[in-house]
Amino acid sequence: MYTVKALKSLFLEYMEANKFDYSPRELFEPVDYILQLGGKRLRPVLLLMSYNLYKEDIKAALPAAYAYEIFHNFSLVHDDIMDEAPLRRGKATIHQKYDINTGILSGDVMLIYAYKYLLDIEKKEVIPEILSIFTKVSADVCIGQQYDINFETAKQVTIEEYLKMIELKTAALIAGAMYTGALLAGASKVDCQNLYEFGLNIGTAFQLQDDILDTYGDAATFGKRIGGDIVQNKKTYLVLTALERANSTQRKQLENLLSSHPVDEEAKIEEVTQLFNELNIKELANKKRDEYHLKAVKNLESLAIEGKKLIPLKNVAESLLKRVQ
Amino acid sequence: MYTVKALKSLFLEYMEANKFDYSPRELFEPVDYILQLGGKRLRPVLLLMSYNLYKEDIKAALPAAYAYEIFHNFSLVHDDIMDEAPLRRGKATIHQKYDINTGILSGDVMLIYAYKYLLDIEKKEVIPEILSIFTKVSADVCIGQQYDINFETAKQVTIEEYLKMIELKTAALIAGAMYTGALLAGASKVDCQNLYEFGLNIGTAFQLQDDILDTYGDAATFGKRIGGDIVQNKKTYLVLTALERANSTQRKQLENLLSSHPVDEEAKIEEVTQLFNELNIKELANKKRDEYHLKAVKNLESLAIEGKKLIPLKNVAESLLKRVQ
Repeated sequence: MYTVKALKSLFLEYMEANKFDYSPRELFEPVDYILQLGGKRLRPVLLLMSYNLYKEDIKAALPAAYAYEIFHNFSLVHDDIMDEAPLRRGKATIHQKYDINTGILSGDVMLIYAYKYLLDIEKKEVIPEILSIFTKVSADVCIGQQYDINFETAKQVTIEEYLKMIELKTAALIAGAMYTGALLAGASKVDCQNLYEFGLNIGTAFQLQDDILDTYGDAATFGKRIGGDIVQNKKTYLVLTALERANSTQRKQLENLLSSHPVDEEAKIEEVTQLFNELNIKELANKKRDEYHLKAVKNLESLAIEGKKLIPLKNVAESLLKRVQ
Repeated sequence: MYTVKALKSLFLEYMEANKFDYSPRELFEPVDYILQLGGKRLRPVLLLMSYNLYKEDIKAALPAAYAYEIFHNFSLVHDDIMDEAPLRRGKATIHQKYDINTGILSGDVMLIYAYKYLLDIEKKEVIPEILSIFTKVSADVCIGQQYDINFETAKQVTIEEYLKMIELKTAALIAGAMYTGALLAGASKVDCQNLYEFGLNIGTAFQLQDDILDTYGDAATFGKRIGGDIVQNKKTYLVLTALERANSTQRKQLENLLSSHPVDEEAKIEEVTQLFNELNIKELANKKRDEYHLKAVKNLESLAIEGKKLIPLKNVAESLLKRVQ
């Protein structure tokens, strides 16, 4: 079995050997740019880990891993246009560095190239199923993004609706990557399905963790501004849970805060955080995240795979979800 | 064999039965809207005609026909954003009716659904090849669109570069549709390839015809403003041929006209048309279009298909390219 580090480095080598060095550069240079901004390479590494549970010839899974990474980056490019985000991983977004039209068209070609790499898979007999699952989770990402947009202006969003949205927008692609790795390696349908569920659960836990870190994280390691969601009045798991548990005074206070755009953003962040603290939101969110984490671990343990082979995946899940003290 | 009319009506029935009546409506309603604006349904009908050269059970080719129509409309949605076009087929474009973000995201999901319909094809063994050709021509469309954008600001564009651009942007998708219909019907590789070439040639002829009609068409039947390309200073086949054949005085005059944005657009259209007339551009463009048309007919005649079965496709080609008197 490969270490996570070894899988990531094999993947990075494959990326390097498969750069978008095509013409016209106006179309493909932005693709190279966004793909080389870095990031955890979470989806491709998880796909390779899923494959590696069953098989050692990692090479056969690299095109699929690349397809998932290309799709993920495509979705970031188009989302960043929609969100008018100037920065991604600390660097200019494509529409900021070039222009919106470049962001649209280079994004489109990325989506097409994700399919191209899936079609490069040598095991031709599994291609229809691999493409079907990819198509399903790709559509889920768009649907999740639309719900996310809808929620911005929705009067009321239930916690259930929110969890469904993050499942679609974030967790589905991770689930698809897990399923694809296992399917490519010839795993049983039951194992493929369990790894899909693992992806959904870990992906949802991961997004809940992101919500928690936005308020309770450490600025030095979080990589984003603490309180960013609060400033933007985002309906996160924390906010929705707080609204659910608040008494009428607290609810009014929270609703006022989360419809305001004050000059003193730090004071707003502090007030909202104070309300979260009164309502025990950090603990409740941690608990919910841990529920998903536990389900994910159970998904792994129900695989037809010996326990010690599961350790690397358990460790990755653990490291994604480090508790905030 | 089915008539063109019968194929179109089978296709429209299939579209009606496969409307995008999914949730959330904010994402899928715009897809229904654009698909129902009408149009010739050229790509799906050609795909079905290609299939029908070999087989009668048209039903089996409907998902692929729909996929090509969805992709074509996806490309219109994103192109219209890039071109800031307010109207499409006389109705508001998606970004105009809704907003740009809706245009981006609904477009994305259309591209994904084009693949979904290709994956619905029942003959599973041809799916990898059908998807490969679709992926190739889809990327071609993006590449062609990028060249088209580049040409807007390019100092010099050769006629050869222009013909390559319209092959990528317009003809490739028609070629892919022809190839796919034949492949689905079990045609030989040679026939598939000939039908692909037919699509490239007829698609290129069709775009040349569009360039000609922009100046020499009949306003009542053209459906667009006569001289629209001239007003927009587009480097069409007519302009590039005129620049090639002009003496230095004429070239200077044309270059000045085609970098101007005068208030009196009609006078500009008249002056440019006058120059075209002096240089015999209409006849030259007709000749070039007829060359491609002839090549397309030859592609058909080299198929392993009896001559009388080719008549409907020849008629469609003819009707697309009706001579301007």
